[in-house]
Amino acid sequence: MAEAAANGDARGGAVPRPTNPMVTPLLTDLYQFTMAYAYWKAGKHLDRAVFDLYFRKNPFAGEFTIFGGLEECIRFIANFRITEEEIKFLRTVMPTCEDGFFEYLSSIDCSDVEVYAIPEGYVVFPKVPLMRIEGPVAVVQLLETPFLSLVNYASLVTTNAARHRLVAGKSKNLLEFGLRRAQGPDGGISASRYSYMGGFDATSNVAAGRLFGIPIRGTHSHAFVSSFMGLHEITDKALTSSDGSNKCDFVSLVQNWLIRIQDSSSLRGTFGETSQSELAAFTSYALAFPNSFLALVDTYDVMRSGVPNFCAVALALNDMGYKAVGIRLDSGDLAYLSVETRKFFHAIEKDFGVVGFGKMNITASNDLNEETIDALNKQGHEVDAFGIGTYLVTCYAQAALGCVFKLVEINKQPRIKLSEDVTKVSIPCKKKCYRLYGKEGYPLVDIMTGEDEPSPKIGERLLCRHPFNESKRAYVVPQNVEELLKCYWPGNSSNSREELPSLHEIRTRCIQHLDRMRPDHMRRLNPTPYKVSVSAKLYDFIHFLWLNEAPVGELQ
Amino acid sequence: MAEAAANGDARGGAVPRPTNPMVTPLLTDLYQFTMAYAYWKAGKHLDRAVFDLYFRKNPFAGEFTIFGGLEECIRFIANFRITEEEIKFLRTVMPTCEDGFFEYLSSIDCSDVEVYAIPEGYVVFPKVPLMRIEGPVAVVQLLETPFLSLVNYASLVTTNAARHRLVAGKSKNLLEFGLRRAQGPDGGISASRYSYMGGFDATSNVAAGRLFGIPIRGTHSHAFVSSFMGLHEITDKALTSSDGSNKCDFVSLVQNWLIRIQDSSSLRGTFGETSQSELAAFTSYALAFPNSFLALVDTYDVMRSGVPNFCAVALALNDMGYKAVGIRLDSGDLAYLSVETRKFFHAIEKDFGVVGFGKMNITASNDLNEETIDALNKQGHEVDAFGIGTYLVTCYAQAALGCVFKLVEINKQPRIKLSEDVTKVSIPCKKKCYRLYGKEGYPLVDIMTGEDEPSPKIGERLLCRHPFNESKRAYVVPQNVEELLKCYWPGNSSNSREELPSLHEIRTRCIQHLDRMRPDHMRRLNPTPYKVSVSAKLYDFIHFLWLNEAPVGELQ
Repeated sequence: MAEAAANGDARGGAVPRPTNPMVTPLLTDLYQFTMAYAYWKAGKHLDRAVFDLYFRKNPFAGEFTIFGGLEECIRFIANFRITEEEIKFLRTVMPTCEDGFFEYLSSIDCSDVEVYAIPEGYVVFPKVPLMRIEGPVAVVQLLETPFLSLVNYASLVTTNAARHRLVAGKSKNLLEFGLRRAQGPDGGISASRYSYMGGFDATSNVAAGRLFGIPIRGTHSHAFVSSFMGLHEITDKALTSSDGSNKCDFVSLVQNWLIRIQDSSSLRGTFGETSQSELAAFTSYALAFPNSFLALVDTYDVMRSGVPNFCAVALALNDMGYKAVGIRLDSGDLAYLSVETRKFFHAIEKDFGVVGFGKMNITASNDLNEETIDALNKQGHEVDAFGIGTYLVTCYAQAALGCVFKLVEINKQPRIKLSEDVTKVSIPCKKKCYRLYGKEGYPLVDIMTGEDEPSPKIGERLLCRHPFNESKRAYVVPQNVEELLKCYWPGNSSNSREELPSLHEIRTRCIQHLDRMRPDHMRRLNPTPYKVSVSAKLYDFIHFLWLNEAPVGELQ
Repeated sequence: MAEAAANGDARGGAVPRPTNPMVTPLLTDLYQFTMAYAYWKAGKHLDRAVFDLYFRKNPFAGEFTIFGGLEECIRFIANFRITEEEIKFLRTVMPTCEDGFFEYLSSIDCSDVEVYAIPEGYVVFPKVPLMRIEGPVAVVQLLETPFLSLVNYASLVTTNAARHRLVAGKSKNLLEFGLRRAQGPDGGISASRYSYMGGFDATSNVAAGRLFGIPIRGTHSHAFVSSFMGLHEITDKALTSSDGSNKCDFVSLVQNWLIRIQDSSSLRGTFGETSQSELAAFTSYALAFPNSFLALVDTYDVMRSGVPNFCAVALALNDMGYKAVGIRLDSGDLAYLSVETRKFFHAIEKDFGVVGFGKMNITASNDLNEETIDALNKQGHEVDAFGIGTYLVTCYAQAALGCVFKLVEINKQPRIKLSEDVTKVSIPCKKKCYRLYGKEGYPLVDIMTGEDEPSPKIGERLLCRHPFNESKRAYVVPQNVEELLKCYWPGNSSNSREELPSLHEIRTRCIQHLDRMRPDHMRRLNPTPYKVSVSAKLYDFIHFLWLNEAPVGELQ
């Protein structure tokens, strides 16, 4: 639906509207409009400005970030138009502004804006612009809040997802279950999209699956289990075998299996009477989904009811030629319970000769996060898939990334934002950004240069300086040089426009990029900071400007 | 736009669609649909079920919560219909399900669902249902995820806003500035709406202002300041006086005032040359908004540049019959800077006899939260308004509320969800809930009873029991009794439907309810828990059911 209408530009084909129809030019801070008026009043609104969008610090006490949200930004500017209805509303908010201003507002679009950006899904670092936006100052200013609101959370949750993948390992299935705990509906949809980008395998969110083609997963809840009283409720007990050759009374088959398990040599005495409500729910669920039976086993008691009941149903399915998927644990000591469940499954395999039963899938959920998965790994567990909700989508460990949007040049004049806090000083000038690779193929350092400086060359020694710390500098001989900022919206320039890849392609790129990083940057404990630098020329210029702009203190 | 189309029911008039058009029945977890199929296959889908929506623990280490999100839930069910296009998609996700099920899905709506809820904006407590939803189990199950996603964040951010209001005090202006740090665009819109509900005065978010009629505020950013080079850029220097009687060269007037301030008796020597870029930006902004001049003063140096520049412009405006609004501080030691700025303003008032200049508004922003405002209060400050973003909208201190949706009855049979963690045991039965008030007008206790029990009576002694702790009980003689759950969607019952009040009315109600609470429940440090209880009869029933359902352990 959101994909329907589209404006485009001549060089790159049509760009669909933003996924969320609420993303319009009015989804911004009022001061963008009051500033636009002040620029317009001063005759400055067409001044050519360059803004950098960047962040200052990697989240989650880590040393990397994944860039997300670019496609939505490009969709936003491709369709940027303030409607007459919106203008009417703005007139009520800014009643003292002149008519000419509102006429100007209704005329603007982003045809003379240029956007250069690092491709979505790249591993990125503090201070290096994720996006460089150039255009008439009043228009570019109007993009600030929407861009920040589209990039901040997207990048944060993609990074969070990637961190969960790193700690869980490549062999585990990661499922995003956060819709109900996200910041409202669209927070949930963004969470699903960007968790998938960051390396998750699937989501429970049907709408997100539909919008973005993400695999969707789901089984049943505790309520489903407790909605059943007992097996008497099941009226249609017949199950046809998978090859269609025979039909059975599935309820009796399940009941027989439960008795056999109870009496089996390895499991005798490990459990007594199981919950009949649970057994009825599992049986019903298996009758509905004989090909994909996965049961939530912790409504009453995992080892004394849930797992035995599951096994009875799974063995009955096996008789009929179906293979059950496995179980989900949603409470308790997941390490212990997964290990005990695995033992139970192996005992079944052994006692009844059902090949592969021991490998039945174990999914764990319940307030999981990086730390708990790390703890499970250390303790030892038998979990095959993690369902992660609250901590993933709310980014509990750090709820905001803090991207900023800073003016770095206006009318070809470089601008700097000073601050007593040196981490808040902006890096002035319209810049180019490169990633330099070393002999072993790892990225070594990102470097920013002035726009007119020659680009770094393979095999040529280059001085890389810390932007603010005089003593931090190093020579690098790059084995490979990648220009980071690519043209995603050419405006009136003659650059061609980068294509917007599919979510699936971005996800693949993201996984590849994470693999390519030197492992010590990526580890959870005391990761090594990746180096971000400026050229010698840019370094000198920053410090010249700094001294020029900063007021001289007087000690009194 | 979102307000346009509407379905309604016969008794209560039309209910608009959800504010966010992405809120459709597919915005849910897949397991709601797989369960619906399993219910349908088992012929159980029409079983009459009762679910409670509640939370288990107050957020932010506090002892109260504000209920938000009800209106959006009612909008959702009033318009609940699965479209043919959505059905088509579901068929691809659940390819093994029978046609009859999809025919059933395309036929359902919420006409036979009943929703009882505590009014939005009420102070609420753990375990007491915020909403009780009754209807065919398959349909009500489909409401779980959307309801949770509409209520969880709404209630959390409303509560967070109310907590910020409590610590800031009633006399301060509270401005919500969080759009750029929220969980994407809709997170931002929800944050603005529910911050206002919780007692904020205004938002920077234009779209939210438009959708909900919230006052909108905004001035200019650091980029605006650094986009100016100097006063030479201002080409149209003329300002007409407020009464239209004369016109001046405003730039010269500002320059003259700056010299006069520099030489004034109280301020001589406190600052030297101010930033000309900043002075030009302020002057331009004042020319654009002479009636509402508010300047961001920390781009270069607050006391040596920003405040003197502001005062020069404000005094020039004063000459022309305009009253400046004040300044905004966005960095540094806000306590110190606000106090120093206030002194500066008073010195201006004294030296130049401008009555009221000392009372000029001081707005503070920059990563503010409950703790920092509390610290500012203790230190002493001169801030009149707080602009709060990240910490408010991301609910940094606790990023999720954790509402749950539990089956409490099916086909008139009470259901309980057990757990080894007693706080996770659900309270079974279709219940009524009351708030009992004491002599001094404060709410004393909330009590849940079975549906058929007589309601508590004014002046009659009643035993209130803790639902799980045998020894915690107390007699109460209520001076007033309020039934909490009111009918917001009558379904096929004969109840009449409560009106949905405006956001402004809910906000007023919320402020009144907060005022009515006993202060020790509301304090920041060691607040007293508010008592939540059950009737003696319900207590006995819970514990009868518990013993019946829980498996008996065996010590080995």
